Amino acid sequence: MMSTERAIAAASASNRLSKVDRMQRAAAARRSVLSFAGGLPDPRVFPRAGLTRAFLNAIAQSGCAALQYGWPEGQPELREFIAGRLRARGCHVGVDDVLITSGAQQAIAIAEQLIFRRSKIIALDPETYSGALELFRARGLTLTFDAAAAAGAYVMPQLDNPHGQIMTESARGRLVELARRSKLMLIEDDAYADIVFRGEPTRPLLSEAPDATFHIGTFSKSLCPGLRVGWLVPPRRYRTSALEVKRESDLQANSLAQSILADLFSADDFDARIARSRKLYQRRAERLVNALRRYLPEWTFEEPQGGFSVWVDSGEPGDDVAFLQRTLSAGVTFDPGSLFRVSTGGTLSLRLSYSCIAETSIEEGVERIARAWKARAGT
Amino acid sequence: MMSTERAIAAASASNRLSKVDRMQRAAAARRSVLSFAGGLPDPRVFPRAGLTRAFLNAIAQSGCAALQYGWPEGQPELREFIAGRLRARGCHVGVDDVLITSGAQQAIAIAEQLIFRRSKIIALDPETYSGALELFRARGLTLTFDAAAAAGAYVMPQLDNPHGQIMTESARGRLVELARRSKLMLIEDDAYADIVFRGEPTRPLLSEAPDATFHIGTFSKSLCPGLRVGWLVPPRRYRTSALEVKRESDLQANSLAQSILADLFSADDFDARIARSRKLYQRRAERLVNALRRYLPEWTFEEPQGGFSVWVDSGEPGDDVAFLQRTLSAGVTFDPGSLFRVSTGGTLSLRLSYSCIAETSIEEGVERIARAWKARAGT
Repeated sequence: MMSTERAIAAASASNRLSKVDRMQRAAAARRSVLSFAGGLPDPRVFPRAGLTRAFLNAIAQSGCAALQYGWPEGQPELREFIAGRLRARGCHVGVDDVLITSGAQQAIAIAEQLIFRRSKIIALDPETYSGALELFRARGLTLTFDAAAAAGAYVMPQLDNPHGQIMTESARGRLVELARRSKLMLIEDDAYADIVFRGEPTRPLLSEAPDATFHIGTFSKSLCPGLRVGWLVPPRRYRTSALEVKRESDLQANSLAQSILADLFSADDFDARIARSRKLYQRRAERLVNALRRYLPEWTFEEPQGGFSVWVDSGEPGDDVAFLQRTLSAGVTFDPGSLFRVSTGGTLSLRLSYSCIAETSIEEGVERIARAWKARAGT
Repeated sequence: MMSTERAIAAASASNRLSKVDRMQRAAAARRSVLSFAGGLPDPRVFPRAGLTRAFLNAIAQSGCAALQYGWPEGQPELREFIAGRLRARGCHVGVDDVLITSGAQQAIAIAEQLIFRRSKIIALDPETYSGALELFRARGLTLTFDAAAAAGAYVMPQLDNPHGQIMTESARGRLVELARRSKLMLIEDDAYADIVFRGEPTRPLLSEAPDATFHIGTFSKSLCPGLRVGWLVPPRRYRTSALEVKRESDLQANSLAQSILADLFSADDFDARIARSRKLYQRRAERLVNALRRYLPEWTFEEPQGGFSVWVDSGEPGDDVAFLQRTLSAGVTFDPGSLFRVSTGGTLSLRLSYSCIAETSIEEGVERIARAWKARAGT
């Protein structure tokens, strides 16, 4: 794509985003609207009691590091906790490898800034996390599906957003091969890894290609997003420059949340907590899948293997934003598929998040979508 | 400056920064070292009890917005509180004008990204906030002292860092005139405004040139930095793009700190709190100034009108980083002046922060510096 075309595509994507943003804000203000939008975790799994205990401990510490400036790389105990979890998944990671970021989004932004200094070509899946897509467009990157032609690839091998699928062994193998042989850099977004429905998370790409992987994680899905604590494990030769970019961006991640988490993890059974969340989200996913089969049997989807959402394809062309307008009138909202799409066009698709809708409302929500769909087909 | 020279200057500044960083970290680990470094607020003014009450209120709210994702622009009550305080200082600011950022540093980074898309020339004071300077260098800007030749100027009209001085009326007038006539954009860093020793903060530049001012503030100096809550009031025509850059950078500022602050301000007498902080810091400033006059009468400085530090000039050429090494051996640390300097060379200068050193240690600290200085002169 030429740069003018790229600018036009980015502007058009940005306009669509603003339009959808206005619609979702209006919907959020109406209590009667059932929401499959946003990819939010359920507040019912937020560890309020544990966080309260941790807050009280953190604020009582002499010197009160929880409220003071901290080092740009973050709180050492928290970084060690993250490093330990990555080691348990087969990565050779020490405390010094982990940089605490203001959420996973900032970790992606830092990786982007370090990888694409010369070549501006990034490989993506045809549908991918909309926040990363918006960032890459805004930074003027050229988007491709061909990792062999790119300087870097943004991937979510363990549970991608929006599909909730685990990357196949062959796709993984090809990426690692490219990273080893042709200097492809990998941005591995591991945000949903903890929300896997069967078994345990796979080995991160970081374990196989540590010199080429910017590994990214977050507590936003497993605990709560409001703390804005994520992390970046850059290849070692990028450690200093990643820290510099972090410091220039916002000095450091917030001390309070880091102190709270460090204290929480010293006492909490995080694995048991995750196990309960997985069950909750899996139950909802099943309920959504069943409702889709019942009310929209002509639509297609893959059953999610984890994460917060199902990617649903109507199989027909159409304007998903106009369709959202229609479902909003019917009292239900979702995320239009076009927000996750690298290319324009394609069939009308939806990302339906089951993570933050009451289990008992899922069927009703899908029924409303189905009614809006049929009404649309009839006009 | 040519771009290669600029790159070399930036790399050299970055190396100096890393070296000083290592030294300060080592010093921080030694309890016996008296510290004039860092520009940290005193933990004794952190409102622990108020923040604890606010935390307990915030976490108990149904839906628990404090732990959930929020809108990228931030929490409305908090934004209204900030807008109200700016209105009281003569600015025409509504809730929609305020964007909550992850500290003032991020607000500076966003402003930088929006202003210098074409021209890369920024005007600065000869000595300025080191975090901004590092950012501008890393982004490849050309630094000048001549605002008439620049696309934007970074200034701290109300209490600059490192001098603690209020901008003169004539300098203010000239900036506003340039902003109105020749489209100079202003980055107004108001971080220390609340810590003024006499009277109340001056009217921000924002009140005089709202179409040309990116106004930046923070609670890091008046309350505590660990929450990482700052704000940006961009000119209205930049509101949408500022929000986009914020969202791409890290989605949103952390919800927990925003909820806590919104609750705190609903019950707290913030002005009384600030008044107490001003008195504390003013007392320390006086003590430091007196100690300097006594132990280092040949050094020059301006008495700070507020803020956290005094800028001290030895009047002699010399390597401030080497001198820091020397004072560290004598058990006292400071921030080398070169970190705040736009140009290289100049006389050996120090930023001495009185904000986080025990009042009773100030004299001893200055005496140690004086001894190290005399020992240096003797070698």
